[in-house]
Parts: sequence; structure tokens; C-alpha cells
Amino acid sequence: MDILLKNIGIITGDMDNPHIEEGFVGIKDGIIDFVSSVNDSMPELKARKIIDGKNRLVMPGLINTHTHCGMTIMRNFANDLPLHTWLFDNIFPVEARLKGEDIYWGTMLGIAEMIKTGTTMFSDMYLDMDEVAKAVESSGIRANLSISPIKLNSGDNKIIDETDKVCEFYKNWNNNADRRITVSLEVHSTYLFSREWLEKSAYIAKKLGIGIQIHIQETKRELAESIEKYGITPLDLCLQTGILDAPVIAAHCVYLNDNDMDILKAKNVSVAHNPTSNLKLGSGIAPIPGLIERGINVSIGTDGAASNNNLNMFEEMHIAALLHKGYYNDPGVVSAREAITMATSNGAEANGLNGITGAVKKGMKADLIIIDMNKPHLCPVNDPVSALVYSVQGSDVETTIINGRIVMENRVLSTIDEELVMGRVREIAKRVIK
Amino acid sequence: MDILLKNIGIITGDMDNPHIEEGFVGIKDGIIDFVSSVNDSMPELKARKIIDGKNRLVMPGLINTHTHCGMTIMRNFANDLPLHTWLFDNIFPVEARLKGEDIYWGTMLGIAEMIKTGTTMFSDMYLDMDEVAKAVESSGIRANLSISPIKLNSGDNKIIDETDKVCEFYKNWNNNADRRITVSLEVHSTYLFSREWLEKSAYIAKKLGIGIQIHIQETKRELAESIEKYGITPLDLCLQTGILDAPVIAAHCVYLNDNDMDILKAKNVSVAHNPTSNLKLGSGIAPIPGLIERGINVSIGTDGAASNNNLNMFEEMHIAALLHKGYYNDPGVVSAREAITMATSNGAEANGLNGITGAVKKGMKADLIIIDMNKPHLCPVNDPVSALVYSVQGSDVETTIINGRIVMENRVLSTIDEELVMGRVREIAKRVIK
Repeated sequence: MDILLKNIGIITGDMDNPHIEEGFVGIKDGIIDFVSSVNDSMPELKARKIIDGKNRLVMPGLINTHTHCGMTIMRNFANDLPLHTWLFDNIFPVEARLKGEDIYWGTMLGIAEMIKTGTTMFSDMYLDMDEVAKAVESSGIRANLSISPIKLNSGDNKIIDETDKVCEFYKNWNNNADRRITVSLEVHSTYLFSREWLEKSAYIAKKLGIGIQIHIQETKRELAESIEKYGITPLDLCLQTGILDAPVIAAHCVYLNDNDMDILKAKNVSVAHNPTSNLKLGSGIAPIPGLIERGINVSIGTDGAASNNNLNMFEEMHIAALLHKGYYNDPGVVSAREAITMATSNGAEANGLNGITGAVKKGMKADLIIIDMNKPHLCPVNDPVSALVYSVQGSDVETTIINGRIVMENRVLSTIDEELVMGRVREIAKRVIK
Repeated sequence: MDILLKNIGIITGDMDNPHIEEGFVGIKDGIIDFVSSVNDSMPELKARKIIDGKNRLVMPGLINTHTHCGMTIMRNFANDLPLHTWLFDNIFPVEARLKGEDIYWGTMLGIAEMIKTGTTMFSDMYLDMDEVAKAVESSGIRANLSISPIKLNSGDNKIIDETDKVCEFYKNWNNNADRRITVSLEVHSTYLFSREWLEKSAYIAKKLGIGIQIHIQETKRELAESIEKYGITPLDLCLQTGILDAPVIAAHCVYLNDNDMDILKAKNVSVAHNPTSNLKLGSGIAPIPGLIERGINVSIGTDGAASNNNLNMFEEMHIAALLHKGYYNDPGVVSAREAITMATSNGAEANGLNGITGAVKKGMKADLIIIDMNKPHLCPVNDPVSALVYSVQGSDVETTIINGRIVMENRVLSTIDEELVMGRVREIAKRVIK
């Protein structure tokens, strides 16, 4: 055995056996080798590394299904603005000043933050994805990285065809060792992609057999402009252009009519719910209870650090579980258990890793986090599932294991030099933010 | 000088001089002796205790204007239920099993949590307030403690007159040394207090010259029942019975009509906004931007740990700043600066301590917190005010100073034995929660 967690509380994320009050988890060659209760027959208790689970809970690592990780550089820049002004007048001009290496450091900072708050996998969409992939590779995190087939030339806004880059990125990074990196296609949105480019993108995704990450119906304005231009909603346009024939992560989905919801269901689209970003930009509140009721796969994303302003999935899960109860005047919607499922196994499914990660279960990738429950704000633990959603903070994550490797222990990162990364990003921010 | 903070970023909460990029704060005899910038002429830099402020921010301690601190015992018990079922069928039966000493330990646990997450004062309403006062006294925190003039007999629900207890509590605890404890009257709500007892309570408050803490218009049901029974809203009933002639903290205020808002304004009522509790119990979303626009004093509360499920004012401030932007589709409402004001100086005003605490300003009580900003999720600090509201976590509070006394340094409490308190509360929870 490589790693043994002993006498630990287990929230498995496995619906057949959701909670083990005290048990063992064994990890070997990056895989969960056994999960058992102290009441079962004893497993082999020898291991290279033993972690004592007293007053601790282990749960599946959280999966952040929508972010732009490198945007940490712009954390807390340009606040209290609506999406269009924020994006076009503030974010894009700064991004035009970013160099490739900047993206690497910004991404490393975001990964450091995510590992420290319990995220073991993220779905990304950003500039210079080779730099992002290098950061993912060296940090040890798992990721689904989407790369765009087009680029907007910053001078004249002309579209540059970058299909070749997509193919090369796919060849270099997809399904590398242990499935640490999954490659997908970025189709930013139907407001930045023409109908022609939507069709081309659908073709590329099909040819390569990869998924798509897209922003869909995030604001009233986006919806109105689509209706005006095409006579149909962005989702309907995606349906018509073949985008939805690929496995799709549709971020936001704030404004959906019944037909849109039918489309999501029929085409097995995964929704990435980003409650903080939608609130902060004044976009609105996505109809999550209705999506769950229809059996649509709803996962959770933080969006970028410039519209959140952090990448803390415990915070996001917490807000997702609270928001809809108040909005719909129904404390029964988005239960604590549903929120955890959204943030773990639904996230795995959204990224095409259903049954591969997202649960503490024999045979699955060892993507796990250990929470220290011996703290005033977590005492007493009357209900561990509720505690994880309503009381636990990202900073309560003590140890993070990804692909069987301990990337943080006792809150110290083993794959990232925090001080170095923070220093670099401070310099970059000074340069690019005027 | 007793304590000197040097070379520290300062968010003063003083509107004349809101942000000092790098400066000094001196504390003497429990009072802020000076606040200056490195660019000003140097103050005397000798002190018994010097704290280096590199990569740190100091701000006024947060003020939690509505909680039931001892309810930590029921943390994460009875989730996903509407208020009435939650309160009458779950919480009250457990509370009936609580003994005086239990309240002391539950309160100590809540105070430990609050100090660790940056709260320096809280407004409380609970059982056995003598036990609460003892916990406040020994922990060093500041509090406004409300005591009820009536008690519901748990057997037959008969009302027991406890006016004598109120007078004794007032005599023993009000305005003790350094104004650490302010005594006020608990008028739980218009659904638990008869019209006669509302009138009596108004009389008691007037006689003693103290304020009132009350729950107001938290749910649709509460509002409907008042209309049915009295033909008017609970607020109007409070107006008629003289309750609003005292300085009042009105918790919740989720359902307000225009007339209610006029009453709040005319009678200088302070509102305690409890966004998490209102969301979690499915109560609804309070019309905070409208209240702010009318110039009503809006502060922030966590409510008890059984409907939140923690007492973390950074989380509460964060949710207050996000929620209304999304709900009203307006990213401009409840700005970061407004959220900080709500959680600090507005809280002081709600508790009758306007100008006494709630800002980092010469002559005011030294109720301060120091935030360690050298962390991945707080880097880069493009805007410190936004960072405090959108990125900082309660766990980033490194040092808490109350009334000039360091009650936590480097996250270690100096007035509370955490392990002892957690152990006691675990035992109590085991006994009272069936």
C-alpha cells in the first residue's frame, strides 16, 4: 500500500454506501485500493505512508467545472460592473497585455489556491493553453483544458483560424499518463463565435472525439441579442450547428426557457452552475432546482477569480446550497447531499470521467481531500454531510491527494512554491493592470 | 503605548480617511491612541508589544448584530426545514433539555468561533443570559445581551413573568467596565409576545433606558398571521405598542411593505440582515438595497449556528454583498464598501455604540482585527476593500484585539481553552440531541 488513511470518517460520494463513520481507505498506484469500515474485516494495514484520521473526514476532491484559472492576475480588479462592461472594457484590454509566461504563473497561483481549498480537478478555458497545461503538469492537479479554434486579433478584431493549434494541443496533451489532462474545445459563446465557426467547431470536436466548453445564456443581454440576430436562443443555435452533438459543459445557463431545458436534457449537456459569478456580475440566478428535477447533470464552477473573487469550491458549494432555498422559498431544494454530488461526481461526469474520479470507491482514481473537523466552527458534528456544505471552509482542508499523490499535507503544498508564485503574479499584475 | 501596529495597511472605516496604504496604529489603555500614515510625521514608536504589519491589513472588528450564540450546540442539526417546523418541532424540544451551564459552554464555543473569524462584538438573544454574560466576561469579547421579560413554561406553554430577572440582569451587567456589556430587552417576536406583553416590554425598556432586540417579518407566514390576528403588520404592531420608542435592532425584515419601511426610517430602527439564515430556512431575500437607499441603518447578523451553520461574519458580509446584485440584476448594489460599513460601524450604531467602536480612529475603543494577506487566494491585492469582502475568509484573521486586549494572536486564542470548550459541547450535544 502506498497510502493508508486510518480511523477516518468517510463521505464516499458512492450512493450505495454514502457515509462510513469510521473506516479505512487504502491507495496504491494512484488508485483507491479499498474502502472499508472498522466493523468490516480488517484490511492490510501496512503502508509507506499512514495518515491518522482522528477527528477528520475524507471525501472526494471537489471538481470545479468552469474557470479561467489564469485570471487570478486580475483578482479584485474591476468590481461592481455588469458582465459586458466588465469583460469588454476592463478584462479584455488587460488580457491583451498578457504574455504566455504570465498565463503560466497566473494559472499556477489559481492551482495553488484550488489545491488549498480542496479542488482536485478543474475545467479551464483561457489564453495560451500550452502554458496552462505546463502548470497542470507540474502541479499534479487534474484538468480538462479547452482550447479555442479561433483568436480575436487585438488590433482589428479579425478572426484568426487556429485549428492547427487545437490539433497540436490535442496531440501533445490529451489523455496523458493517468488521464491527468483531458483536452476539449473552447467555444467561448455564441456572441463571440459566428454561426459558421460554431459549425466548424462542431466538426473539429467530432473529428477529434473531444468535448466542448462553452458559456451559455449567462445574461439577459446575451439572450436578447441572440433572439434579435438569429431568432432563436443560443442553446437552440448550438443545437442547430451541431455543437451539442459533442459532450458539452455549458457554463451559467441563467436564462433558460422550457425548450432550452428540454434541449439540455435531450442532448445530455452538463451544466456548470456558477452562483457567485452570476450574483457578482448581476447576471441573475440560474434555475437549478428545475434542472435537477429534470435529471440534467448540474455541476459547480467558480468562474475566474476576477468575477468571484476566488476559486474556492467549498464557498461555491455553500452558496449553491443556500441560494435557491431562499429564492424559491423552499428549504428542501438543493439539499446538502445534492450540493456535494454536484461538486464531486457530477463534475466528474461533466468532464467525461464518470466512474473514474469523483467518489471514494475501490478502483477509482485517488482524488481525495481530508478535512480537519476539530475546530470550533465545526463542533459539534451533528451531521457530517451538512457540516461539509454549511460549515466547512476551504481552509479546513488539511491534506489533498490527487492521482494518489499527496500534493498538500498539513496545508503545505508539495508541488508548488507558493511564495515564488505569488511574487511573480504580483509583478505581472503591476505591469498589466493600469 | 501598549500595542503598536507598524507598517500595516489600514482600512479605517472612517469615511474621512478610508484607506491608508501603509501606516501605524497605536493602542493605549484599551483605546486607539493614534492612526497615521508612514508619510505623516512619525509617532512615538515604543510599545510594550509591537506587531509587524508587512503584507497585513488592519480593519475594525466585525459586529454581529443578531445571533443566538449558545445554539452552537445544535450546529448542523435539523437541516433543510422551513422556519416554523425547524423552530417548534426541532429546536424548542432540544432547548427544553438545556441546563444553565450548557448555555455557558455553547456560548463560549460560539465566542471562540467569532473571535477566530474576526468578530469583536455580538448582539445576543438566548436562554439563561447570566450564563451568556459570564462567557462574555471571561472571553473578553464585547456584547449587547438581550434578556426576555417572559418565559414560556415548557409543560403547558404558560407565560411566566420574569421582569424581576430583567432588572437584576440589568443591574449586574449593564455598562460594566469599558462598556464591554450592554444590556437590552429581548422581545422575541410578535408571534410569541401578546399585545399586552409588547406594551409591558416597551414600558420596561423605557423605564430602564435600554434597547430592544426583536425578530421582525422574517417569513411570509409570520406576516400573514399578524394580518389575520391584528389586521396590521408586526412592525405596525410594534409601533402601536411603543416597542419602537426604544432603540431597536430588528432582525430579518425580509417582508416589508412601503409603510413598514417608512416606520423603520421614522423610528430609527436598525435592521440586522441575516442573509444566510434567511436563505437556508427558505424564508426569502430581504429588500436591502431599498433600505440602504432610504438611509435606514442596515447591519449584518449570522443568526444562530443551527440555521447558518456557523457564526462567520466574513462569510455573511460576502453573501450580503453578492446576493442582492444577482437578485436585482444590478452589480452596483451593496458595494464592497457598503458591506464593510454594514458589518462594522452600522453594527456599532445598532448597538448604541456609534463613535465608541466600529472604526480604526483615534479615541475609539481598540476593537481591531489583523488579516494576513500573504496567501494565494488573496494575491494579488488589486483592491483591498474588494479583497476583504469578496476574497478574504474568516480563517485569514490572524490577530483579534478587543478593548485593547489581544484575544487571539497568530490564530491562538488567549482567553479560551478551545479543546476544553469543544469537549464540553460535544458531551452536551450527545445528551440533548436525540
